[in-house]
Amino acid sequence: MSRSLGSIVQALGGTLVGPADTPVRRLAPLATALADELAFVAQARYASQIQTTQAGALIVPPALQDAAAQRGAVIVADDPYLYFARLTQWWRSEHDAPAAAAIHPQASIHPSAVIGPGVDVAAFAVIGEGAIVAAGARIGAHGVLGRGAQVGAGTVLYPRVTIGDRCVVGARCILHPGVVIGADGFGFAPHQGHWIKIEQLGAVRIGDGVEIGANTCIDRGALDDTVIEDGVKLDNLVQIGHNVHIGAHTAMAGNAGVAGSATIGAHCTVGGGAIVLGHLTVGDKVHISAASVVTRSIREPGQYTGMFPIDDNASWEKNAASLKQLNRLRERLKAVEQALEQAQQKKTEP
Amino acid sequence: MSRSLGSIVQALGGTLVGPADTPVRRLAPLATALADELAFVAQARYASQIQTTQAGALIVPPALQDAAAQRGAVIVADDPYLYFARLTQWWRSEHDAPAAAAIHPQASIHPSAVIGPGVDVAAFAVIGEGAIVAAGARIGAHGVLGRGAQVGAGTVLYPRVTIGDRCVVGARCILHPGVVIGADGFGFAPHQGHWIKIEQLGAVRIGDGVEIGANTCIDRGALDDTVIEDGVKLDNLVQIGHNVHIGAHTAMAGNAGVAGSATIGAHCTVGGGAIVLGHLTVGDKVHISAASVVTRSIREPGQYTGMFPIDDNASWEKNAASLKQLNRLRERLKAVEQALEQAQQKKTEP
Amino acid sequence: MSRSLGSIVQALGGTLVGPADTPVRRLAPLATALADELAFVAQARYASQIQTTQAGALIVPPALQDAAAQRGAVIVADDPYLYFARLTQWWRSEHDAPAAAAIHPQASIHPSAVIGPGVDVAAFAVIGEGAIVAAGARIGAHGVLGRGAQVGAGTVLYPRVTIGDRCVVGARCILHPGVVIGADGFGFAPHQGHWIKIEQLGAVRIGDGVEIGANTCIDRGALDDTVIEDGVKLDNLVQIGHNVHIGAHTAMAGNAGVAGSATIGAHCTVGGGAIVLGHLTVGDKVHISAASVVTRSIREPGQYTGMFPIDDNASWEKNAASLKQLNRLRERLKAVEQALEQAQQKKTEP
Repeated sequence: MSRSLGSIVQALGGTLVGPADTPVRRLAPLATALADELAFVAQARYASQIQTTQAGALIVPPALQDAAAQRGAVIVADDPYLYFARLTQWWRSEHDAPAAAAIHPQASIHPSAVIGPGVDVAAFAVIGEGAIVAAGARIGAHGVLGRGAQVGAGTVLYPRVTIGDRCVVGARCILHPGVVIGADGFGFAPHQGHWIKIEQLGAVRIGDGVEIGANTCIDRGALDDTVIEDGVKLDNLVQIGHNVHIGAHTAMAGNAGVAGSATIGAHCTVGGGAIVLGHLTVGDKVHISAASVVTRSIREPGQYTGMFPIDDNASWEKNAASLKQLNRLRERLKAVEQALEQAQQKKTEP
Repeated sequence: MSRSLGSIVQALGGTLVGPADTPVRRLAPLATALADELAFVAQARYASQIQTTQAGALIVPPALQDAAAQRGAVIVADDPYLYFARLTQWWRSEHDAPAAAAIHPQASIHPSAVIGPGVDVAAFAVIGEGAIVAAGARIGAHGVLGRGAQVGAGTVLYPRVTIGDRCVVGARCILHPGVVIGADGFGFAPHQGHWIKIEQLGAVRIGDGVEIGANTCIDRGALDDTVIEDGVKLDNLVQIGHNVHIGAHTAMAGNAGVAGSATIGAHCTVGGGAIVLGHLTVGDKVHISAASVVTRSIREPGQYTGMFPIDDNASWEKNAASLKQLNRLRERLKAVEQALEQAQQKKTEP
Repeated sequence: MSRSLGSIVQALGGTLVGPADTPVRRLAPLATALADELAFVAQARYASQIQTTQAGALIVPPALQDAAAQRGAVIVADDPYLYFARLTQWWRSEHDAPAAAAIHPQASIHPSAVIGPGVDVAAFAVIGEGAIVAAGARIGAHGVLGRGAQVGAGTVLYPRVTIGDRCVVGARCILHPGVVIGADGFGFAPHQGHWIKIEQLGAVRIGDGVEIGANTCIDRGALDDTVIEDGVKLDNLVQIGHNVHIGAHTAMAGNAGVAGSATIGAHCTVGGGAIVLGHLTVGDKVHISAASVVTRSIREPGQYTGMFPIDDNASWEKNAASLKQLNRLRERLKAVEQALEQAQQKKTEP
């Protein structure tokens, strides 16, 4: 369970300064790394920690090469954080490779389903009529693929992921446990105090390289499809309503929610617990802070926030009470300004 | 996969203006509908789109009949949105009827369970001791019915829904994947810095015609039951605490949460991400905006909101900083008002 | 399904005032208890209800013994709420004892897994390579234990709980349906507009006596482990990011979220829907109100709140609009103060 620095540089590139046979037993955070562990320093502002870390070796940017080399073995990389990301991928493939693909005898696969080469189907998975699983995909235990559902090549479904009828997941995606793709969107017509269900006739289309966190839900569209473009990353417990469109490489943190028919651009980020209301348009490169509520369309790139600042409870109570008077305070201020102005005018009158 | 306008009117009523054999290949949104597709215009304010849509046929209210008939085939309905809702139901039944009901040989059904006629039980479902599944209900793959759980006639459980011991779901309900009915309520007695569990001895009772979204959770009561009345609609990832009571035909959007022992009336709506605190009473026909927090009982019908308005981050930072001074600002304003008043009194003194 | 007051006092202690053979058919809330039901009065401030309740018997603190005994049978306990909690545990064990432990023939257990004595494994559970299940633990239907996962003695996993590879759950824990332990943390390095996955090489370590609500997710650490200490109680639909550390006996209500690498102390409470941002430190005995967002480290014990007060929508709209001007209002107030001060100085000048 140990690799040499030399083998790492051979696999991932970068410049090695120090002995190639330096052993690396584990990748570790800079602050807690031990003598046989490898850590990274992403930016020059962490340079001071180079002297204090116990790490056996460091990944550093060129600007820190000299400082780091004085204390021990170093891998120099232009972007140490990116290098570290790739290193975790290599490390996992070296130490924790998946078992050989197999169709578990206790899986339930409809005879009409099309299972590509190298597909793994775990115990108690259910693959429905006409479903298609492309080469090298892995369907975890208790996974359910509905009628006509499709899973792209190399995609990994962790245990108990549900892909509804006719929904399509692209290639090289990762869906974590409990994900639900293609539940009905929340659509009802009001009628005499009751809600009449609008059957959701659309589906969900998910691009390539998408990662979806545990227990996250993406609803099927009412008429058209809900669309998640390539490279989108959704954290756990995220809710995506029907007919939402999320642009490529947008990332959304845990507990966030997007209501029906909202359109979110590419390269956006949405913080944890944030909510985007329905039928809005959020442009490309918009960043929504955690717990903020998007109540209007946002077309300009930038960071947007709306969140009551936390305070000790007693202070909050006073300020919250005043807040409910705020418009009145504004009017009172205006009255004061006018009174003052009048007084000054009088004074300057002859 | 195509139906004629005539067959639609025959099934659902409404007045047909135009040829009965006009083919409809798909139901589509007004803005994107094509020549062989059917769209609806719900309200007169969308009238302008009648001229621009490419839809082959339109569902319109009587007021728009003339305008719509000038351009092509029309179904006239008093409430086009309601008509559309019923049309989606008919369309689905025509195109996507469920497979014939059957008990899958890989389901695990306790011998004491009572399975009604026409019930479908999918692969790997587990039906516990003394559970009752009424006529025509469908238990999806990986569904779990605990001891003594009951599912009403015609109710559909999508894959991996869990109904806890003794919990009761009414007739014609729809429960989406991942729903958990009857997990323990969150109840503990504090004791010397520890939490002593209060066993949750109640259950959950759900009425008829209730729809519950994916991964939504409804906890069992501590002593009495948690109650969801007829016709309630809950979206995905909603949390309902123990002993909550939700009145008939109330609808709650995604990520909303209701804390223990709160009572919500009938015909309410609760927006996405909104939270109702415990032990409160919300009356009938109360509408809570998205992301708002109900911190006090609300008895008057109406719309209620509490949410920090979103802004560009720099503006938000300034306003949020000022907000933490708001009570102080109020006091300063009062001081200014008093000073001004004194000054004016002096001036008017003889 | 009935127990005598005498048998309760024999099992749980307390002082019985009244006939030992008083029958108790059910534990009930004070307000709705009937003649053959037992209720509790936790505090002297509920004393007035002693005269109005229909309960056949009451649990009361010593201060209320006389008042309660005048109307019927009483159990006197120093802490009635604690007594009640223990009573619910005893009641459940008397009335709803779990079935005898067994390994269901339709479970899938890897030959290398270690299953302790008295372990129950339900239908369609999947126990992976090298997993360890300690004595008396119960793995519910559709449970999944990954490679090398561990479940401690006496721990109960309700149906469809997923414990990822190498994750460890302590003894006497309760995990409700849909819980996901050990999904990947949300970690990506940005690179040319794409997100490069950082493989999450850590795991999750959960202490003893932890309870985790339905569909709650706890992510595995990136390099080190995510840690949940003894006695922590998490409600439903809670999100715990990677490398979070939650101190002993902290409780978090539904829909709450903790972002990556945050540290929360012991004996804290976090209200429903609250969010703790990443990399922050919250000290011991800090209490976060519902729906509040922790945006900075909090080291002092106490109650903290940040939430826009709810109001009727029209009032909210006015105040929210003014809020977006708040910093400007502050500046205007300052200008008024200065103008007033100048005016007063002039007046006092000779």
